[in-house]
Amino acid sequence: MAANGSLMHAIVYHGPGRKAWKEVPKPVIEEDTDAVVKVDSVTICGTDLHILKGDVAAVTDGRILGHEAVGTVEQVGSGVKNVRPGDRVLVSCITACGSCRFCREGSYGQCIGGGGWILGHRIDGTQAEYVRVPFADTSTYPVPEGVTDEEVLMLADIGPTGYEVGVLNGRVSPGDVVAVVGAGPVGLSAIMGAKLFSPSHVVAIDLADARREAAKQFGADLTIDPAREDAVEVLRGLTDGLGADVAIEAVGVAATFELCAALVRPGGRVANVGVHGGPASLDLENLWIRNVTITTGLVDTYSTPTLLKLLATHQVDLARFVTHRFPMDDFLEAYDTFSRAADTGALKVVVSS
Amino acid sequence: MAANGSLMHAIVYHGPGRKAWKEVPKPVIEEDTDAVVKVDSVTICGTDLHILKGDVAAVTDGRILGHEAVGTVEQVGSGVKNVRPGDRVLVSCITACGSCRFCREGSYGQCIGGGGWILGHRIDGTQAEYVRVPFADTSTYPVPEGVTDEEVLMLADIGPTGYEVGVLNGRVSPGDVVAVVGAGPVGLSAIMGAKLFSPSHVVAIDLADARREAAKQFGADLTIDPAREDAVEVLRGLTDGLGADVAIEAVGVAATFELCAALVRPGGRVANVGVHGGPASLDLENLWIRNVTITTGLVDTYSTPTLLKLLATHQVDLARFVTHRFPMDDFLEAYDTFSRAADTGALKVVVSS
Amino acid sequence: MAANGSLMHAIVYHGPGRKAWKEVPKPVIEEDTDAVVKVDSVTICGTDLHILKGDVAAVTDGRILGHEAVGTVEQVGSGVKNVRPGDRVLVSCITACGSCRFCREGSYGQCIGGGGWILGHRIDGTQAEYVRVPFADTSTYPVPEGVTDEEVLMLADIGPTGYEVGVLNGRVSPGDVVAVVGAGPVGLSAIMGAKLFSPSHVVAIDLADARREAAKQFGADLTIDPAREDAVEVLRGLTDGLGADVAIEAVGVAATFELCAALVRPGGRVANVGVHGGPASLDLENLWIRNVTITTGLVDTYSTPTLLKLLATHQVDLARFVTHRFPMDDFLEAYDTFSRAADTGALKVVVSS
Amino acid sequence: MAANGSLMHAIVYHGPGRKAWKEVPKPVIEEDTDAVVKVDSVTICGTDLHILKGDVAAVTDGRILGHEAVGTVEQVGSGVKNVRPGDRVLVSCITACGSCRFCREGSYGQCIGGGGWILGHRIDGTQAEYVRVPFADTSTYPVPEGVTDEEVLMLADIGPTGYEVGVLNGRVSPGDVVAVVGAGPVGLSAIMGAKLFSPSHVVAIDLADARREAAKQFGADLTIDPAREDAVEVLRGLTDGLGADVAIEAVGVAATFELCAALVRPGGRVANVGVHGGPASLDLENLWIRNVTITTGLVDTYSTPTLLKLLATHQVDLARFVTHRFPMDDFLEAYDTFSRAADTGALKVVVSS
Repeated sequence: MAANGSLMHAIVYHGPGRKAWKEVPKPVIEEDTDAVVKVDSVTICGTDLHILKGDVAAVTDGRILGHEAVGTVEQVGSGVKNVRPGDRVLVSCITACGSCRFCREGSYGQCIGGGGWILGHRIDGTQAEYVRVPFADTSTYPVPEGVTDEEVLMLADIGPTGYEVGVLNGRVSPGDVVAVVGAGPVGLSAIMGAKLFSPSHVVAIDLADARREAAKQFGADLTIDPAREDAVEVLRGLTDGLGADVAIEAVGVAATFELCAALVRPGGRVANVGVHGGPASLDLENLWIRNVTITTGLVDTYSTPTLLKLLATHQVDLARFVTHRFPMDDFLEAYDTFSRAADTGALKVVVSS
Repeated sequence: MAANGSLMHAIVYHGPGRKAWKEVPKPVIEEDTDAVVKVDSVTICGTDLHILKGDVAAVTDGRILGHEAVGTVEQVGSGVKNVRPGDRVLVSCITACGSCRFCREGSYGQCIGGGGWILGHRIDGTQAEYVRVPFADTSTYPVPEGVTDEEVLMLADIGPTGYEVGVLNGRVSPGDVVAVVGAGPVGLSAIMGAKLFSPSHVVAIDLADARREAAKQFGADLTIDPAREDAVEVLRGLTDGLGADVAIEAVGVAATFELCAALVRPGGRVANVGVHGGPASLDLENLWIRNVTITTGLVDTYSTPTLLKLLATHQVDLARFVTHRFPMDDFLEAYDTFSRAADTGALKVVVSS
Repeated sequence: MAANGSLMHAIVYHGPGRKAWKEVPKPVIEEDTDAVVKVDSVTICGTDLHILKGDVAAVTDGRILGHEAVGTVEQVGSGVKNVRPGDRVLVSCITACGSCRFCREGSYGQCIGGGGWILGHRIDGTQAEYVRVPFADTSTYPVPEGVTDEEVLMLADIGPTGYEVGVLNGRVSPGDVVAVVGAGPVGLSAIMGAKLFSPSHVVAIDLADARREAAKQFGADLTIDPAREDAVEVLRGLTDGLGADVAIEAVGVAATFELCAALVRPGGRVANVGVHGGPASLDLENLWIRNVTITTGLVDTYSTPTLLKLLATHQVDLARFVTHRFPMDDFLEAYDTFSRAADTGALKVVVSS
Repeated sequence: MAANGSLMHAIVYHGPGRKAWKEVPKPVIEEDTDAVVKVDSVTICGTDLHILKGDVAAVTDGRILGHEAVGTVEQVGSGVKNVRPGDRVLVSCITACGSCRFCREGSYGQCIGGGGWILGHRIDGTQAEYVRVPFADTSTYPVPEGVTDEEVLMLADIGPTGYEVGVLNGRVSPGDVVAVVGAGPVGLSAIMGAKLFSPSHVVAIDLADARREAAKQFGADLTIDPAREDAVEVLRGLTDGLGADVAIEAVGVAATFELCAALVRPGGRVANVGVHGGPASLDLENLWIRNVTITTGLVDTYSTPTLLKLLATHQVDLARFVTHRFPMDDFLEAYDTFSRAADTGALKVVVSS
């Protein structure tokens, strides 16, 4: 590859705790369905921090990180039909082969034809000047007119994750009382998505003052600091003693999942969005009789076209996720800012070329 | 009435381990929506055995047990519109007020207007010569012509429980591979209900030889003794390595629930039917990414009219549940036979007047 | 009661073209599930005008008209459990027996147990000082705190009609392009309901300038005068040439229904809300291949509790429907104003005691 | 193309009423996603007869007919990933680009990326020794082991058409009463598919004795000759006067569609499967109040993998569709037999190489 020896800069993982912004070979077309995309804007995900802690064993030394980007197509394989050099595209966190049984059902995150979450995980990712995108026809989306790169970039992962795995799995409906546990970027995305269905109340629950404040900005009607208030009591108070219609878990630890199960009413739904590293306890002695539905999910990104339409018609405001901006040469500083979100107030940081 | 002290016989609970077939006052109309029904046939549920162990604190000394019956209406309150003395009716395990928010949604098991599971639990039950049935209009069903009492009796509880909480919650569909863990009466009901949707395979998993044999009689295509075979491997072998589309838990202990969660494919459904006395562990570190749906539920009995129609048109064979029959005077012997099911091979025992 | 011959005033139908505001006997409890409600506020429906033209044969000479009211319960039958004298209630246009097969499924409009649309149709209605409401427990709703009678009154009919029969039947979803044909009160209700689901565009189509203007006030993003613009072309222009996701018919004549069928994209939905007096032509030679879904429906009012919650939490603004107000003694003037809506600009007129 | 001048035989359309079995150039790979498939078995569809009458204007002189085949892959383009020379495949009547908005939703019949129904319509079809199949990865299906070509061939069109457009669109459910109007091959497929959901009654309605007899063989519980019996009355008799839960139209003329609309109960579903050449009348003056759902649709073939699984596990018997078999050289005789179905009793004729 890189026959002519072209080089570029990228964030390269070198084992737990170690990363570098360094020169590496520029990617080339490997399969005829690939595109090589020049990265214009890229962001950092909480998952990238997990990888850097060594939590994701499939990520090995030398891997370029990142699974979210907006960029310009530079080159496409002979089998790419719908994407052309010069096109401005959203590179989705999920790659879809488009023909396996899961892709046929729109469940791209579960692709067994070579896709799924692979960027910055099993193949090199987007935190680089260029990225190779497999199955480009079914894994990229044209950037609509009249919107900014930054806004579109929010739909690479957190937009559809909060909407599909939180809001749609939780079947949020008009008049519902919705509890969102965890008001980080994905929790805020769930709040924003829930508001599309006109719930009567969205209640955000988070220990951090700044995040509760952000939750209000994103449309939460009420916020709860669980260190000071009993969330179960508050939710019951809003619902004639019954509990929330929907509880969305957006943290990824046992305690918050268990809180969600305690928050919902008989017939309610718990939608888990958080990435978990261990088991939780499921109180079946209480839950068996309560007609509760619990869902889990990796984002499938089937909703990306809908969210792009909502962005283009200004039904959702995605710009407010972006708190910090950096040029590519300061990528390590962007990581530093994002990893100290409690201090810096960072929601999403955008790194642009 | 009963002013003159009419008496009847009933199974009366006297604290953990103690019950009696004894004379008690015959019930009378207390509310204008009540009916008093002469019990023609009644059965015993696994839940009754739990009560007798002292597991259900709400059941107190002196309570008449039982929540399943077929009988003849003797008397109705002035507010009863659709049921008349002389009508032959199925007395459902679930009582429905018919007007609370849950009843309005067909979720009768969650009734907050005075119904739900109350017979043999919070009020006197059906294991008696007569039973008072509250909200008779919405809590009883006419016995169709051409079917036996025994068959209809199977729809008081286990029929709709296996069908609604197992099959419908699990969204069993044509071509699915369905695992049913536990082949007692409710598990067999789930097997029977699953077959209504033409799955490609129903796989029954149970430690007891007799129950696996019964599962085959009820339509299981394959049975697994989990002491000798790895159920996860068998299911993967049937499904290109993916796992079951649906796993139905019909035991009520942590291990079988956890097995169900391990059995299902990405995008699969776990439908819990079992009555649990303690928590289970939910392996969120594996499940969060797998798009799994887990449901719990007390039966609502919204499907009872459908099941009665399927019975009347011979789409389901309910007679085969009944393994033993007793006259009312031998009610204690019926309990003995049912409680030693491993020895006696009892599925459902029917006690008739 | 009324043993003493109590009298009241009411709007009485006397055959095509003839009505009177006259003294009639005050209603009394006839069945134990009845309530007698003192009417505080009542409105007039387009259907009442149809009746007055003689279009509804079931309405006979002497019938009191009206099927919408907010009032105060004066007396209840012995079988009424949840409603008490002094309660302030919404009297729904649909009466529900609560126990027939249709009511059990929430399809109250199709009630075969003595309910359905009966008020002001098969029994005396609400345009009176008092009204007898059968099946009061399942046919009235408590008025929530903090809202006005006028607002709640809009939920007796037009609120749930536009929402259920238009928006929910049409499965309006985030990002959809929704065409509403007819911007009278029910069409405006459909526009308001559609907005609850964050469509990308709501397009209102009406010949009358005033109604298109009202549509904008209720949230339409675009309006079309079909006398001057080709609605099919405009909708295609918004949708890459495909057509609307949903078209809601809110007029009730063949031409507007046929326009709806022409407006939708492959896979789209046509939700008929209008009351029709004759057949329409269905272009099956074009439609058979287009995966279209067409729904019809009388309102069931299963959504009334949800809409009351949305009203109480200010998710919907119902006050803007009310353009004119009258005291009861001017009921005939209210009819005159409503029947000349083109001149008077009337949307809904409210008559209060 | 056909640089080396390879020739083959095919059925070629030469304008209304004219077809020939003649030598034409063998197809070659034109796009890198194409496969060339040697046709082992092929059948004739009622639509082919329509084309021969000149009813389908898009079919022009010189077109090879046919859109159903089972064959052996001879050659694939460089962009084909999942299909290899030597593979035995089902060639579906619907071609799917796999990446347009409709394909992403599983609505392949509405493909706007170059697919849809194109074989034997807009490009050369399957009634030939060889056929070029565009988008081979998403438009062919591997033939499972243990089943015959003939059986699989029934899934090229009629199997999924009856199942998706009739049964699934009609939402057939356990206990339903289902009316199928028209018992030709697609109507029989709908009957077979309906039985997968355990309806209480399937009622077939057809004027032809032989077809009513075939309907019984395929599982109809009751048949009606509409020339001698009033179908509406019969259906009401089965349903307490209400009407069918589902009516499936499988003829394609106005009268049968209108019959379906008259057959369904309040809340019922009409699923149109027939190919129509003109409009029907929709009795909105009766239907507007009845909560009816009407669906139309070209098959999408999203259910083909499910049906292949049901075939492989013997849940459906597809062999019984095949009444006549011919070698390729007798293709014109096969057409003659199929076109005179009333005389020959033909359901499906299979032509094999």
